[in-house]
Amino acid sequence: MKKIKVGIVGGTGYTGVELLRLLALHPNVDLHTITSRAEAGMAVSELFPSLRGFIDLKFCDPAKADLTQCDLVFFATPNGIAMQQAEKLLATGVRIIDLAADFRIQDISVWEKWYAMTHACPAVVKQAVYGLPEINRAKIAQAQVVANPGCYPTAVQLGFLPLLKAGVIDTDMLIADAKSGVSGAGRKAEVHALLAEAADNFKAYAAGGHRHLPEISQGLAQMAGKPVGLTFIPHLLPMIRGIHATLYTQLTKSVDVQQLFQQQYQDECFVDVLPAGSHPETRTVRGSNMCRIAVHHHADTNRVVVLSVIDNLVKGAAGQALQNMNIMFGWQEASGLQLVPLAP
Amino acid sequence: MKKIKVGIVGGTGYTGVELLRLLALHPNVDLHTITSRAEAGMAVSELFPSLRGFIDLKFCDPAKADLTQCDLVFFATPNGIAMQQAEKLLATGVRIIDLAADFRIQDISVWEKWYAMTHACPAVVKQAVYGLPEINRAKIAQAQVVANPGCYPTAVQLGFLPLLKAGVIDTDMLIADAKSGVSGAGRKAEVHALLAEAADNFKAYAAGGHRHLPEISQGLAQMAGKPVGLTFIPHLLPMIRGIHATLYTQLTKSVDVQQLFQQQYQDECFVDVLPAGSHPETRTVRGSNMCRIAVHHHADTNRVVVLSVIDNLVKGAAGQALQNMNIMFGWQEASGLQLVPLAP
Amino acid sequence: MKKIKVGIVGGTGYTGVELLRLLALHPNVDLHTITSRAEAGMAVSELFPSLRGFIDLKFCDPAKADLTQCDLVFFATPNGIAMQQAEKLLATGVRIIDLAADFRIQDISVWEKWYAMTHACPAVVKQAVYGLPEINRAKIAQAQVVANPGCYPTAVQLGFLPLLKAGVIDTDMLIADAKSGVSGAGRKAEVHALLAEAADNFKAYAAGGHRHLPEISQGLAQMAGKPVGLTFIPHLLPMIRGIHATLYTQLTKSVDVQQLFQQQYQDECFVDVLPAGSHPETRTVRGSNMCRIAVHHHADTNRVVVLSVIDNLVKGAAGQALQNMNIMFGWQEASGLQLVPLAP
Amino acid sequence: MKKIKVGIVGGTGYTGVELLRLLALHPNVDLHTITSRAEAGMAVSELFPSLRGFIDLKFCDPAKADLTQCDLVFFATPNGIAMQQAEKLLATGVRIIDLAADFRIQDISVWEKWYAMTHACPAVVKQAVYGLPEINRAKIAQAQVVANPGCYPTAVQLGFLPLLKAGVIDTDMLIADAKSGVSGAGRKAEVHALLAEAADNFKAYAAGGHRHLPEISQGLAQMAGKPVGLTFIPHLLPMIRGIHATLYTQLTKSVDVQQLFQQQYQDECFVDVLPAGSHPETRTVRGSNMCRIAVHHHADTNRVVVLSVIDNLVKGAAGQALQNMNIMFGWQEASGLQLVPLAP
Repeated sequence: MKKIKVGIVGGTGYTGVELLRLLALHPNVDLHTITSRAEAGMAVSELFPSLRGFIDLKFCDPAKADLTQCDLVFFATPNGIAMQQAEKLLATGVRIIDLAADFRIQDISVWEKWYAMTHACPAVVKQAVYGLPEINRAKIAQAQVVANPGCYPTAVQLGFLPLLKAGVIDTDMLIADAKSGVSGAGRKAEVHALLAEAADNFKAYAAGGHRHLPEISQGLAQMAGKPVGLTFIPHLLPMIRGIHATLYTQLTKSVDVQQLFQQQYQDECFVDVLPAGSHPETRTVRGSNMCRIAVHHHADTNRVVVLSVIDNLVKGAAGQALQNMNIMFGWQEASGLQLVPLAP
Repeated sequence: MKKIKVGIVGGTGYTGVELLRLLALHPNVDLHTITSRAEAGMAVSELFPSLRGFIDLKFCDPAKADLTQCDLVFFATPNGIAMQQAEKLLATGVRIIDLAADFRIQDISVWEKWYAMTHACPAVVKQAVYGLPEINRAKIAQAQVVANPGCYPTAVQLGFLPLLKAGVIDTDMLIADAKSGVSGAGRKAEVHALLAEAADNFKAYAAGGHRHLPEISQGLAQMAGKPVGLTFIPHLLPMIRGIHATLYTQLTKSVDVQQLFQQQYQDECFVDVLPAGSHPETRTVRGSNMCRIAVHHHADTNRVVVLSVIDNLVKGAAGQALQNMNIMFGWQEASGLQLVPLAP
Repeated sequence: MKKIKVGIVGGTGYTGVELLRLLALHPNVDLHTITSRAEAGMAVSELFPSLRGFIDLKFCDPAKADLTQCDLVFFATPNGIAMQQAEKLLATGVRIIDLAADFRIQDISVWEKWYAMTHACPAVVKQAVYGLPEINRAKIAQAQVVANPGCYPTAVQLGFLPLLKAGVIDTDMLIADAKSGVSGAGRKAEVHALLAEAADNFKAYAAGGHRHLPEISQGLAQMAGKPVGLTFIPHLLPMIRGIHATLYTQLTKSVDVQQLFQQQYQDECFVDVLPAGSHPETRTVRGSNMCRIAVHHHADTNRVVVLSVIDNLVKGAAGQALQNMNIMFGWQEASGLQLVPLAP
Repeated sequence: MKKIKVGIVGGTGYTGVELLRLLALHPNVDLHTITSRAEAGMAVSELFPSLRGFIDLKFCDPAKADLTQCDLVFFATPNGIAMQQAEKLLATGVRIIDLAADFRIQDISVWEKWYAMTHACPAVVKQAVYGLPEINRAKIAQAQVVANPGCYPTAVQLGFLPLLKAGVIDTDMLIADAKSGVSGAGRKAEVHALLAEAADNFKAYAAGGHRHLPEISQGLAQMAGKPVGLTFIPHLLPMIRGIHATLYTQLTKSVDVQQLFQQQYQDECFVDVLPAGSHPETRTVRGSNMCRIAVHHHADTNRVVVLSVIDNLVKGAAGQALQNMNIMFGWQEASGLQLVPLAP
């Protein structure tokens, strides 16, 4: 079987180790290089003993890594890194999937405001394809650089898509109450993410405005064909993996919402519309690339409530990146992603 | 110090053991009787070893308990029990606080629909006072029977109260996205509440309609002076204690919401309005009777987001019951409720 | 590829759903029947939504199931069921792997004492092979009926094996302090296993004697060639999956214990001896069939401490059952078990 | 009521906030000063919102704090701080309780080896009293400086005390398998203590030797009147509070161990010997100063297993410090420590 050479830049965070978990068993991938400044020289499986027996590589100093040998490079770096290296790599024919936010927002000034940096490479933003396969499948196949969506944006956009595409809701009244496990905050040593702080506890955060807001708004506006009025409040769950988005909106036309969702997603391998009356649980997608959705219509208020769950590290990050890779290289979209969720 | 005789009917659930935890140290309470059909004869501290050294009583067979000797009886029973015993007890001069739902809803037909029983005692419903001190303090002082509010209703009503009272929001657009720890489901052997099912997991439930909806709607309508359009979606948190209600509504008048909340609650000992921009955490009220609230106003959409947290077993159940007892008997409202939250 | 027909008796517990998770992707397995008295007629994926898209079967009434069509039947039933059905099935040529305890203990009187039942089928016990591949690989290959080891016994026996086989420890001084996640207690509605009871809590249980004690003692005695003096204390961890056994014994001969362990397990695909000085974490085997072991020698007291971790539902149950199946049918021992642990 | 002035040095960690929780309601304490270099100027209740309404102080720059005005100073600092300031403070008549390890170990060379520092003040070590009231009550009453015991040492020593004092066990065969919630690791930003790392996980650590080993050995040797052979293995529990020590030893004389424990602790207000056959749970002491103990004797091996639980932040730190303060100042030993454990 033909294999491609894959590199990972910045593989010591949670999206990095999750990429490794998935790539380890992908039939078409030859893992060539993984870089880390801090851990250069250390065996990957020493930092992540769960990978013992699956990954034999050592972390490589970014300065010494020859990524131009790769067919594809994943950036699993903090925001602001990929934009500094992308142009050079692209010029050598390497394709790129960025799991950070560098290429997600088309309006550079909006990006610069929310990420508090000057963008190093607006030209690449223009050519980047937003990697939500359920919307951009054809463009992804041709893309040189894919901006892999954020975790919250994936769960929220997939939940609103059928309604916005059908034009049956009040686009000024979109509310996304989203809850995420703490792995979404990354593998950083911060007091607020300690088990002794975050366990047996629940809170909202960034209620005044979160970086994923402009990304979600951009996506919903494209679906609606006009700007939308979105309120997005993220919350921190006392658990490791999983996002649950509870979406509220107002129906403006009479429509069978259950049917609408089923039709929209009937050919998708990674969006599963549950039977009417269901409540998706985050654990039913734990470790898998699936997004499960249920939709409820309240006749008395004509309000629609959408419940959408994903594993933030899989469909919300590394899994969706593999899905994009599969599309880019013309493989089966679910290749290497036949993951049965771990339950209980 | 003068003491009253207190009885508890049905003390083997979580509201029961929480009542015991709080009553054990109340200066004016002589715990006289605690009944349980299933555990009659067993020492309370055998079932709940956390109470060793604090509670010497045994569970008493309800058939043999003489509750008429009590000045006050708490019902910590399943729904539908208190309504069968209240009338007789009240006739002997005993005062009652019901922690279940039997006397919470004034419209008997609404109650019967949601609780799927015929109400045994509509007359007592009429005389019952809804025990939310921040609204009904004066009536509670005179009450013979108090309907202690539900946990979700407490968190949601305290969050909407200042806005509804001031008449500054669209009463047709009220959304309450509420999350509760599993102790809210009670101490019942049910598969869905097992640690192996509920831990590391998150889900909505009863999205089609939850029993607390009519209770909340009744309260909000009284504040608004007219019916309201409320959507209420409860969720199950993978933790033991705590409710976090995230409330969304639309501002219709220009107003300083922070000031509004501070004024409303400035004299309350158990509602704490946090500084502007805050995010209350459930653990900051763990084990205490406090409700902490923050309010956010989004100027672009003119939407208001209220974040309200309580401990569902204290301010959402047993603690509020003690607060009501203190008011009924003319004691300091915070007597026995000087509880510093347990953090971390 | 040649496939066998597989049946599962009693598939509604945690070992059942875990078997389904693993069998769903096994290349040689055609899942033919899964029985459940309680859930007969219900789709498997309705009870376990994590299996949507992977398992299309419905639970089948045991009375109507024709298991004789199967090449292999797994019993994922409570203790005492397999012993009633095994003889008949074996007579038709079906091979059996029992995940319960019915055939684990050779001394029938010991079994009957600990399991408080009369054994229905001592003859099958005699022919049954104890399915710990690291000890009995050759016999398993020929077995008609395999007694799949218990979860604690797997972790403890693999930890003591190199020391006992080498004859370098005091066999009268064996202590196993073992800790298990709550999924080990099964998917039964019991108060003590509720999240509100078992989370944020830790306790020992069965300190006077646990059913796995005779199973472990039997195994250790076979390794030692004589009876052993074992103390085994199980504890309940506030988490879902994972067993950690901490083993203590006294060294009687001078030996390099690290080398001893490495030599014993160098050819094993599912036992991983960590470098000297390591501490295995349960999450490094989460969802996988691996047992990871570290060994520490304290020179001052000449005591040896072995740390052994498994996923109780995989190497401690369903995964080991698949490993046994692979051996029985002559397939690659790791077939269908190439599972990268889910971390974080 | 007469009050003393109390100072806290280093109040931003978990023992600090726990001291504040308990001191806030102590009838004889006037909280005078709390210092923190990092947070100087910040309101205590801003860092710890759980203390809103209970503590009005701000953190004070250590350089500006006048601790000599205090009657008593608690050091809730990292190891190595108290030893630098104690001598000066003692000279002014201030009494000291150190919650760190600076004065716990009498043999300075042992201390210096395990804590990898030169001790700044051996003279104070000599005069310091080890603050385990169940052993040193009379000395504590007279002490100018108390070395508050470590969390593991408290649980382990109270578990072995009756057996060692009675001289009925083999002092060369002492095993302490101890498990602690993560709050024991302190409020430090470290990756291994993140919820995403430590939740749903269990591991041993420091199996080669932990700093509490010499402290425990010193205590046990004093009880035994000779050196002991102790193996101590600590483990990290996926929960916030609580220590469970499982102790193993060999009985050398025929004795009723249940009676032995009951007699030893019959007059203690903070050690609770459970009925024979019991298994103490950490949650039954959550938030309280109680140590609960059960003892099991296995007749066949003549082995004794002791199960001992405490809340590591209360009886294992701040609560025991208050208990020592009560003894030092001649108040009721349980004053301010009438804490009903928080369960569930």
